[in-house]
Amino acid sequence: MAFPQQVRIVEVGPRDGLQNEPGPIIPTDIKIELINRLAAAGIRHIEAASFVSPKWVPQMGDAAAVMAGIDRQPGITYSALTPNVKGLEGAMAAGVTEVAVFSAASEAFTQKNINCSIAESLKRFQPLIEQARAADIRVRGYVSTVLGCPYQGDITPAQVAVVSRELIDMGCYEISLGDTIGTGTPLKAKRMLEAVAKEVSLDRLAAHFHDTYGQAVANLYAVMEEGIAVIDSSTAGLGGCPYAKGAAGNVATEDVLYLLQGLEIDTGIDLQAVVDTGHWITRELGRANGSKVAQALGTCGR
Amino acid sequence: MAFPQQVRIVEVGPRDGLQNEPGPIIPTDIKIELINRLAAAGIRHIEAASFVSPKWVPQMGDAAAVMAGIDRQPGITYSALTPNVKGLEGAMAAGVTEVAVFSAASEAFTQKNINCSIAESLKRFQPLIEQARAADIRVRGYVSTVLGCPYQGDITPAQVAVVSRELIDMGCYEISLGDTIGTGTPLKAKRMLEAVAKEVSLDRLAAHFHDTYGQAVANLYAVMEEGIAVIDSSTAGLGGCPYAKGAAGNVATEDVLYLLQGLEIDTGIDLQAVVDTGHWITRELGRANGSKVAQALGTCGR
Repeated sequence: MAFPQQVRIVEVGPRDGLQNEPGPIIPTDIKIELINRLAAAGIRHIEAASFVSPKWVPQMGDAAAVMAGIDRQPGITYSALTPNVKGLEGAMAAGVTEVAVFSAASEAFTQKNINCSIAESLKRFQPLIEQARAADIRVRGYVSTVLGCPYQGDITPAQVAVVSRELIDMGCYEISLGDTIGTGTPLKAKRMLEAVAKEVSLDRLAAHFHDTYGQAVANLYAVMEEGIAVIDSSTAGLGGCPYAKGAAGNVATEDVLYLLQGLEIDTGIDLQAVVDTGHWITRELGRANGSKVAQALGTCGR
Repeated sequence: MAFPQQVRIVEVGPRDGLQNEPGPIIPTDIKIELINRLAAAGIRHIEAASFVSPKWVPQMGDAAAVMAGIDRQPGITYSALTPNVKGLEGAMAAGVTEVAVFSAASEAFTQKNINCSIAESLKRFQPLIEQARAADIRVRGYVSTVLGCPYQGDITPAQVAVVSRELIDMGCYEISLGDTIGTGTPLKAKRMLEAVAKEVSLDRLAAHFHDTYGQAVANLYAVMEEGIAVIDSSTAGLGGCPYAKGAAGNVATEDVLYLLQGLEIDTGIDLQAVVDTGHWITRELGRANGSKVAQALGTCGR
């Protein structure tokens, strides 16, 4: 075992979580408060918004207002998803210092979602990444469906490795490996990671796992055994993937923090503060809290 | 890694699960149908009842009728919990071939629950175990609170090892190590297991983990890495511990089976049949299904 001593949590609740909330648009001030609370809890990397057409994702239509409204703290990265150059320009105008692009290891998934091949989708990102890099903005790359695809089923580790390597070669500083439909299990996750690590250095890889089948915490444990030290998670388990059937369920930040505490891995994050934030946001949204740790610990009323 | 090639599932839903159901007494025929369905799904070991005073556990008052009513299949163990000699006699009269006794690694937990020391509680089991063994009835020993106690907090691995060894020396054939309040994490679980395995051979140990903090699947993965090949679980996550605050949440059999499939470990059990059984029993009880796999896979209507 070679567990990392420290793990960086990338909190995706404000973007990946909230963008999938059904019902009315969540008020901008709630989004801002969520981000400020997570920062106050000690989370150093928060995906705060998505600069995407409100026609496609109405819930993220106030991305610029959110970025303008948050109480930015030094040392904290507030990143945003940017699907295209127009999104990047919006993000830059809003003072975003890190953006993310979203790809997939599955041809079928890519065709279904954006109606082109993986190669074509990566080509479209080239000007975005170049423009971002020229402005000293870091670019993170998501690769989704790394442990299974809702349309084509199995994904070979080699497919994941190829796409990950291409995104790195194009200028991404880190690749977040997404188990979009949560069908992964520890052995599968390890095999995938081993293949990717042959193409991309381990310290440039992150795990973004969904808990749809209750395996996410075990999968994270397994990939940390292999040396993964960056984990994406969502407070209260907010979110999922709007395109993949049954893919609700980002792993809850609280449950990951509890795992990390038990493994004696440092994150610098106050678990109870995240628990309280999760209870607060789920009350605001009128949804169930998806974190078992949050349910077990309750709230101290903050 | 030295994963077992096969894992034996000990299904505890009909006993550990149903005994904690609040509300009206579950009809005997529902209990019988649950057990028969689980056996038909391929589960080889089912804890079917508890021969305990109905004054203490009213939900198990029909243990003899349940044992008489099930459609016993060859090769399947239908075991029962027996807290005392009177319970054993009831179980023997009902034709039970395996019984279980329940102890704890925590002095505080034992005092609180049965008002005596661990040593005293074990001494009380001596005549029960002797009488069972004389009648060729196998005795399984539960050790609860192995990864934390609701009253005294931390439990040392040495405490667990001592109690486990004593139960083996007294004649138990297997020790089921219970994380009663679900506070365990993988490293803690491994350290506990390593200590116990110095006193009791690994092939006589089982893991009985609760998912209160969302860690059970990861903990099972971790102890299987150490060689554990017997896992207690509860269909649909039925049950918990009636005495420990916040201790709802036996790990769901479905979620364990999904993990095992992914690890290419054989159980001989039909996952979809267990999923369907879980949906059926939770509908009958009017409670939520605690298995994420069951929620993701849905039901084919059986």
